[in-house]
Amino acid sequence: MFIDLNCDLGESYGSFKVGMDEEVIPFVTSVNVACGYHGGDPVVMEKTVRMAVQHGVAVGAHPSFPDLMGFGRRDMKLTTDEAVAYVKYQLGALYAFARSAGTELQHLKAHGALYNMAGRDIAMARALARAIREFDSQILLLGLPNSKMEEAADELNIGYVQEFFADRAYNDDGSLVSRSLEGSVIHDTDVAVGRVVRMVKEGVVETYTGKTLKLNCGSVCVHGDNASAVSFVKTIRAELEKQGVTVADMRRVIAG
Amino acid sequence: MFIDLNCDLGESYGSFKVGMDEEVIPFVTSVNVACGYHGGDPVVMEKTVRMAVQHGVAVGAHPSFPDLMGFGRRDMKLTTDEAVAYVKYQLGALYAFARSAGTELQHLKAHGALYNMAGRDIAMARALARAIREFDSQILLLGLPNSKMEEAADELNIGYVQEFFADRAYNDDGSLVSRSLEGSVIHDTDVAVGRVVRMVKEGVVETYTGKTLKLNCGSVCVHGDNASAVSFVKTIRAELEKQGVTVADMRRVIAG
Amino acid sequence: MFIDLNCDLGESYGSFKVGMDEEVIPFVTSVNVACGYHGGDPVVMEKTVRMAVQHGVAVGAHPSFPDLMGFGRRDMKLTTDEAVAYVKYQLGALYAFARSAGTELQHLKAHGALYNMAGRDIAMARALARAIREFDSQILLLGLPNSKMEEAADELNIGYVQEFFADRAYNDDGSLVSRSLEGSVIHDTDVAVGRVVRMVKEGVVETYTGKTLKLNCGSVCVHGDNASAVSFVKTIRAELEKQGVTVADMRRVIAG
Amino acid sequence: MFIDLNCDLGESYGSFKVGMDEEVIPFVTSVNVACGYHGGDPVVMEKTVRMAVQHGVAVGAHPSFPDLMGFGRRDMKLTTDEAVAYVKYQLGALYAFARSAGTELQHLKAHGALYNMAGRDIAMARALARAIREFDSQILLLGLPNSKMEEAADELNIGYVQEFFADRAYNDDGSLVSRSLEGSVIHDTDVAVGRVVRMVKEGVVETYTGKTLKLNCGSVCVHGDNASAVSFVKTIRAELEKQGVTVADMRRVIAG
Repeated sequence: MFIDLNCDLGESYGSFKVGMDEEVIPFVTSVNVACGYHGGDPVVMEKTVRMAVQHGVAVGAHPSFPDLMGFGRRDMKLTTDEAVAYVKYQLGALYAFARSAGTELQHLKAHGALYNMAGRDIAMARALARAIREFDSQILLLGLPNSKMEEAADELNIGYVQEFFADRAYNDDGSLVSRSLEGSVIHDTDVAVGRVVRMVKEGVVETYTGKTLKLNCGSVCVHGDNASAVSFVKTIRAELEKQGVTVADMRRVIAG
Repeated sequence: MFIDLNCDLGESYGSFKVGMDEEVIPFVTSVNVACGYHGGDPVVMEKTVRMAVQHGVAVGAHPSFPDLMGFGRRDMKLTTDEAVAYVKYQLGALYAFARSAGTELQHLKAHGALYNMAGRDIAMARALARAIREFDSQILLLGLPNSKMEEAADELNIGYVQEFFADRAYNDDGSLVSRSLEGSVIHDTDVAVGRVVRMVKEGVVETYTGKTLKLNCGSVCVHGDNASAVSFVKTIRAELEKQGVTVADMRRVIAG
Repeated sequence: MFIDLNCDLGESYGSFKVGMDEEVIPFVTSVNVACGYHGGDPVVMEKTVRMAVQHGVAVGAHPSFPDLMGFGRRDMKLTTDEAVAYVKYQLGALYAFARSAGTELQHLKAHGALYNMAGRDIAMARALARAIREFDSQILLLGLPNSKMEEAADELNIGYVQEFFADRAYNDDGSLVSRSLEGSVIHDTDVAVGRVVRMVKEGVVETYTGKTLKLNCGSVCVHGDNASAVSFVKTIRAELEKQGVTVADMRRVIAG
Repeated sequence: MFIDLNCDLGESYGSFKVGMDEEVIPFVTSVNVACGYHGGDPVVMEKTVRMAVQHGVAVGAHPSFPDLMGFGRRDMKLTTDEAVAYVKYQLGALYAFARSAGTELQHLKAHGALYNMAGRDIAMARALARAIREFDSQILLLGLPNSKMEEAADELNIGYVQEFFADRAYNDDGSLVSRSLEGSVIHDTDVAVGRVVRMVKEGVVETYTGKTLKLNCGSVCVHGDNASAVSFVKTIRAELEKQGVTVADMRRVIAG
């Protein structure tokens, strides 16, 4: 049994430092590297990719809407051609650092509002898949289970990896329970870890209503924003290994 | 005998249109494509690279300082690491569109103030050469003859192509006569064409002081900014072909 | 009888030149000056405001979403606080040039997607009105008749000026006929001028369905994008004056 | 005896948080507020100015070169017209928030590389003074003693306030000892506080070589970047008050 742990990285920008990149990277297997549109200036990108290579961690692109002021968290109404071109631009920019550092891009995970829009809007989802298809069809698309992103990846014959949110409650249809509802976010580390282990070993998660939902996630989304998030990643990794689950990057997970 | 004609292209940005790209591209053999830092948003980059491929024209990167408001024409004091990372970022971004369109990057020509600084400052010149070296050492560096750029390319074992300015007077040491001096810019098309032909066939140009200067330029820099510039490109190309010179991209010129 | 002619101006950005500002300004009475978020860098703003003062033309702010790459034409989902702050920022920036040039800001007209969103979305409309209210409540808001912008201006007790589109067909409710429908854009200059004159003198326009719609517009929106647009402005102004209508800025129109 | 304590504030940008603004503001009398070019998006600017008003702290503009990626710390070669326009733009943008919050701009202090260039280059210094002169000649210019900034302020008849650096050693001519030299930065809080008190009470500072240098600084530059900086500000303020020095904003200091 294998599972990937993915984390956003390299979101600092010039003198603006965010994230505990050095602290979290030893415990994850894949990183989503910001590409300059919401964070991640070129110097940070270069440094982040090198750090990933040193830790044997797989590198993925984390493209965003062009909205540094809003950290890519605000919906923007782009045409498909614009979205494809913006994603390709960021993909290529990150690729330059990957290639310089002797590695390849493993995957792409959209950031913020682009992730959310692509999850529900097939045109935006296709833009992601098309950018991958046209640049390098071996790059995996990482996203929500059963979302429009998965649909678009299937259409264009792109490898798709579903990700699991350890600290979020699920609706019966596999979507995430809105943050505005009580119980939507799981704060108890033991409970969260238990859910991850069960998802990996049994392929199911208990939903918000108490039903059992089948999921086939190859990666767990974790965070390195602060000390408690990093601590959670350590715990989850240790527990998974204790339970006989091997933590490995997405290509290894897919190989099975 | 072969010579390349290179031209800046794809400098439009969103709704801001500049240059007569469609008109000039049929007559050149290499294009320097803006990469977003002084012009050239991703949509324009994608379109420009496709147009180049359709016309069988070789694609090169035209990286700049990050200064859209100043069109990359203002000196910026960057560290070497910053300069390397900014150039790599732009190189990779353009590469994404080249790869999507089924082509490779032939060369890199720095834009505006970055070109000028790299011509006289070895640290900046090395930043260009290092970016190429680390990303793809087959990419040629295009620049001034006998400049710091050439020195840096030689140091890092990067192919270097000298470019010739048809409409500019030369000092005896091969540098360009300052625009502030009378006679520094050659306005007579026949004279300019004659100089290009002589440079290609005999490898010399008459300097500002009347001496004969040896040059070994593989490319002539031309412009597509306005109708008269485009007309000049047509004339120069026709005249070169009439004189038995084959107009071809840089790789062909180097192959000889 | 008085009517204002308003035109977008100062949308150039650094080396990117757009619009025939010098040609159109002698014929209008108010200008909407870009404030850096979709066009109009500070150098252009300074020059544009000075030119307006020289021509005795009233100056207004033309704020936009922060989207230079999309020329402010793409919807962005901002919070009200973000929208208020962005509009205030641009208002103040332009005010600096107005005050330097010895004038005041007469009005504010939102640009592109911000204009359209504020026309239909009361929260965005209130952001415009609140920015004016808090910065300088004497500034007029210029916008669509009977839109959310007008509603918000009324709520906050801000002066509102309705603008008339000479070349667009109107629905019976005063909204513009969608550009996708035949006949939505009026290409015949004589017809367009006739509509303006009738609107000014009789306060009505014939709708798309042939009905008579009452309007009370204090300003006519004209363009300076190209030679034929400028020519249209000249014609409209000459015809209005021939018909005894005085072309004057918004404050004069309001004074009646 | 009066002295002002000035501190950079509002340098956060969107989701990028820097500085301990809330912690330091109770102890200073003037704040230099970032205006969007190196930090400080409009939402941050609005919040920062309101906070200053609530604490009875005077507001000043902290304009920068347009270089968010470099935090305004890199030299840029601008024309005087560009520099004037960029400073005015930022001055006006901040003014919008000041006016909204019911206050005026007290002063302007250039940021980073703009501060350093204007200290040694009279053309850049004049750009600052001209921007003030043309926007509002009552705004004070805050900067290095005996610098080009002071010279330019005198030329244009702008009020100038010299600032004192508590933690930096001085050369005999009043310039700061280069950071590369040992002893250039004073780490001992007691020593630093003692120097401030002596400068305020006796108008002198002991130089790097042991001589006594006359200074007439109306403001002390302090920092709010981290907890120890904030702690230093508290100490300095308490000590000054203990010594009978009243901490007050620049206008009060000038009134004497």
